[in-house]
Amino acid sequence: MYRTHTNGELRIEDKNKTVTLAGWVQKTRNKGFMVWVDLRDRYGITQLIFDEERTSEEILETVSKLGREFVIQVTGTVIKRESKNPDIPTGDIEILVSEITILNESLTPPFTIEDNTDGGEELRMKYRYLDIRRNPVRENLVFRHKVTMAVRSYLSNEGFIEIETPYLIKSTPEGARDFVVPSRVNKGQFYALPQSPQTFKQLLMVGGMDKYFQIVKCFRDEDLRADRQPEFTQIDCEMAFVEQDDILNTFEGLIRHLLKEIKGVEIGEFPKMTYDEAMQRYGTDKPDIRFGMELGELNAVIQHKDFNVFNQAELVVGIAIPGGNSFSRKEIDKLIDWVKRPQVGALGMVYCRCNMDGSYKSSVDKFYDQKDFAQWAQVTGAQKGDLICILSGETSKVRTQLSALRMELAETLGLRNPDEFAPLWVIDFPLLEWDEETKRYHAMHHPFTSPRPGQMELLKTNPGDVKANAYDLVLNGNEIGGGSIRIHKKETQAKMFDYLGFTPEEAKAQFGFLMDAFQYGAPPHGGIAFGLDRLVAILGGQETIRDFIAFPKNNSGRDVMIDAPAAIDQTQLDELNLQLRIKP
Amino acid sequence: MYRTHTNGELRIEDKNKTVTLAGWVQKTRNKGFMVWVDLRDRYGITQLIFDEERTSEEILETVSKLGREFVIQVTGTVIKRESKNPDIPTGDIEILVSEITILNESLTPPFTIEDNTDGGEELRMKYRYLDIRRNPVRENLVFRHKVTMAVRSYLSNEGFIEIETPYLIKSTPEGARDFVVPSRVNKGQFYALPQSPQTFKQLLMVGGMDKYFQIVKCFRDEDLRADRQPEFTQIDCEMAFVEQDDILNTFEGLIRHLLKEIKGVEIGEFPKMTYDEAMQRYGTDKPDIRFGMELGELNAVIQHKDFNVFNQAELVVGIAIPGGNSFSRKEIDKLIDWVKRPQVGALGMVYCRCNMDGSYKSSVDKFYDQKDFAQWAQVTGAQKGDLICILSGETSKVRTQLSALRMELAETLGLRNPDEFAPLWVIDFPLLEWDEETKRYHAMHHPFTSPRPGQMELLKTNPGDVKANAYDLVLNGNEIGGGSIRIHKKETQAKMFDYLGFTPEEAKAQFGFLMDAFQYGAPPHGGIAFGLDRLVAILGGQETIRDFIAFPKNNSGRDVMIDAPAAIDQTQLDELNLQLRIKP
Repeated sequence: MYRTHTNGELRIEDKNKTVTLAGWVQKTRNKGFMVWVDLRDRYGITQLIFDEERTSEEILETVSKLGREFVIQVTGTVIKRESKNPDIPTGDIEILVSEITILNESLTPPFTIEDNTDGGEELRMKYRYLDIRRNPVRENLVFRHKVTMAVRSYLSNEGFIEIETPYLIKSTPEGARDFVVPSRVNKGQFYALPQSPQTFKQLLMVGGMDKYFQIVKCFRDEDLRADRQPEFTQIDCEMAFVEQDDILNTFEGLIRHLLKEIKGVEIGEFPKMTYDEAMQRYGTDKPDIRFGMELGELNAVIQHKDFNVFNQAELVVGIAIPGGNSFSRKEIDKLIDWVKRPQVGALGMVYCRCNMDGSYKSSVDKFYDQKDFAQWAQVTGAQKGDLICILSGETSKVRTQLSALRMELAETLGLRNPDEFAPLWVIDFPLLEWDEETKRYHAMHHPFTSPRPGQMELLKTNPGDVKANAYDLVLNGNEIGGGSIRIHKKETQAKMFDYLGFTPEEAKAQFGFLMDAFQYGAPPHGGIAFGLDRLVAILGGQETIRDFIAFPKNNSGRDVMIDAPAAIDQTQLDELNLQLRIKP
Repeated sequence: MYRTHTNGELRIEDKNKTVTLAGWVQKTRNKGFMVWVDLRDRYGITQLIFDEERTSEEILETVSKLGREFVIQVTGTVIKRESKNPDIPTGDIEILVSEITILNESLTPPFTIEDNTDGGEELRMKYRYLDIRRNPVRENLVFRHKVTMAVRSYLSNEGFIEIETPYLIKSTPEGARDFVVPSRVNKGQFYALPQSPQTFKQLLMVGGMDKYFQIVKCFRDEDLRADRQPEFTQIDCEMAFVEQDDILNTFEGLIRHLLKEIKGVEIGEFPKMTYDEAMQRYGTDKPDIRFGMELGELNAVIQHKDFNVFNQAELVVGIAIPGGNSFSRKEIDKLIDWVKRPQVGALGMVYCRCNMDGSYKSSVDKFYDQKDFAQWAQVTGAQKGDLICILSGETSKVRTQLSALRMELAETLGLRNPDEFAPLWVIDFPLLEWDEETKRYHAMHHPFTSPRPGQMELLKTNPGDVKANAYDLVLNGNEIGGGSIRIHKKETQAKMFDYLGFTPEEAKAQFGFLMDAFQYGAPPHGGIAFGLDRLVAILGGQETIRDFIAFPKNNSGRDVMIDAPAAIDQTQLDELNLQLRIKP
């Protein structure tokens, strides 16, 4: 061992002990006759002291060469510090050094290794190994470890078995795009990396392993949006002989356990809300219910005047911004510009000030009167001093737009308290969703999701109305998990593939193994998967998953540190029986 | 929930309770007036009883339709069983069924779901989900879960942090062949799947995370040998500010903990043996030390007569087979044939019987006399009643051959007791090994391994003699882990790449990020990685890793259940800018 103690460990009780420490030079203060060095490691900082009277010239000579981030080993005596530092646990002591060795030198780091660094995102990613030395990044990684340990311990105690499923599987064109892996031994053939272990966990249920989980990497070759990673981690779970409520209860228990163990927060039974209700009240299937500003549907009280924009709209809907009447005209114009951005896409926004004297002032005063406004206030729950914001248009679009505005305002108004946790089950998702591009229905969750009992027949006549045995767990406005009760009979699964436009041959080629398995005594089963990256980020009071991943990729799917992906040798391509269509 | 209890849970104390059970029909015995059904799940078997007097006709009708592996749900009363079954924990009770539902039917399974099945390997792999229903397979998977839980709990308690490293990294031609993943977004470029997280864990050490571990999938595109998998799992570990002994002590602690927790076996300090000594005494770098039969080098006592085969050999070496004098001439001829098989490759074998009367009888009696034989017996440690087997030839080859014979005989003689655990550290591995094919030295471990102190200079003059700070943990004749102290200075690493035949450009292109990192204060560090599949198998008293993997691939790297790898769509190839050189 290069050390007898870590740099976070020594206290005044250790006075007079001879100790050996190792770590990085955080800072050197040289007063000429006296030099202090802050020595850092994963565990903390310990101050070293050198002075003309007590330190040999040779050592002082070495100390004079030390630069930031040099790795050194020192031996010395623990002494009481004259001016104590109450901010760090080792602040009562310092080390009078009698031996010093430079274990490795360091170039000047490209950014400061401090809690608040001067390094930009790109630079910190390129030198991620230096970024990880910073407290906030290191603490996030340690936090992630604590969460996964707690998840495993909880599920294992509940009788779940962690089982590793394969990474080299088969590509299925359904769903998102697969990453594929050419096989050298089976030329012309490819493995695919799993988007999730879905079919394997279902096969484990057929295999009788009635409580399965796995913390597992999954892969999706999507055009990356901000804060999406091509590889991400799931807590993947499945149970047999269960109904929907059994799954909700079990995994509500898991999240409750995490909130208590990790955050010290006790939460009672999680509320449940149907998908339809969530869309109506919040305009989204992942509502943040830590605050109000619910959507008020205004059609009944707003479509009786001469204002055509509203009259022609499928839905007119508003929210009341608490205290929003204090916004200046300029601030409101900014909000209007914000909803008109292409990312939101509203055509405009009508507003109505609720003055403290009970009167109203609106941007559509010439169409509506005070009685109208009072009704709007009633529907949106607006109080004196609030601002009502109203959007109109096609129902699904306008809800999404208003939901975006609601979240933006909540952020601005500080209503999204990271220390408050408001979980919510959203249930009764639609089984199918219409895809404008392909002009057909797709499985909203995946093709293995079972419709709610008795709704199978509706598929023929009103496919869009069929509800699924599917559920999401939403935490503070983020979907952290989702799952469903699966189909477990071959005939039902075959029918489902048929509805989804698979020919029997396609269904057999891609999922024949699963349908075969269903013929040999498949039990009723269902499950859920949590996005670990996001769950950890939210538990950590943040929303950027990249900060909780040791070596994340950038928005183009590149690892800028190791510079991957990269070209490969021609011999590698040859061995794989591949050639590039267009040479780079 | 489809059940109030599992099938392994009910006891005589539960008599008269109304319970609901679910599971698979293991067996039906129909005596006409009475029917018994064994209901199975992951937890055990419970006997159901139906009879003409107490069971409704409707239920009896349903029961008559039950086939093997049907999934059923029953409600009934726990009653005392007339003829108890002491072999199962639920053997004192049975369930008098009052309600039955067939949850799913089953075709007749292609093999019996019994501890000893009639299904062959290929069939069991194709229907792995049925194989997993069998006790031995299920128990292996549960055992694996217990081992990984114990590993995580031990390492976490020791201050190690589990950190996920990326799966989509960069291909490096050094070492085994990479699996590559074409990038769609970065056309013409490829990711590679990691053969191990080696460079990333070293970067974590540079990042100050001084105790890292990860249970992680790794990938190697090798031509598969028996019992190798293209994807396999490692317990990957790294520490900073440590020397070799610190690593050995820490991970000896882990294995000791596992043996105690999982197997109830207490083991003291693990013996250490140098690579040279292991090769000399056992002919292998992974000796099974549960039994003797050590190699005796006979050159000094055997090369003084007219037997040219021995006189011209670089090494003449023998082992004494305990009780081997009881072998018939035919059995000995079989042994000779065995060592002459191409897989072993010996040209012949000389033997010498040690008779109970103290006399010797050898296959080379015309060259040697009784005094010679007595010396052979002394060197090989042969006792009266033993058989001495002698091979000769080129040192490294003949050691490997005799080691193979030693293991084969130990297996036959029942000396490899699966309940006995004999761990051994093999240390001081050579840094380099000569590759006949490329006519140059390769890193024996990997190019990041540091030479033993002071041996760097030897590289120029006697590269084959340089020892590395590298070590393997051997358990019962299997390498279960290996690691090294790493190079942590840029100049040393650059020199090493140079010795290994990298141009500076190649070194920079492939490992530039690591050498860059070494410039910013890399601490001394080292680590180890354990092969989890093998470790679990050996702890489980077996040596076939496939039995401890939920969904293994066959010897051609195929998953015969899902039929992967497989052809992919032309559109997928197009999107990846790829085409097949030779169409299938």
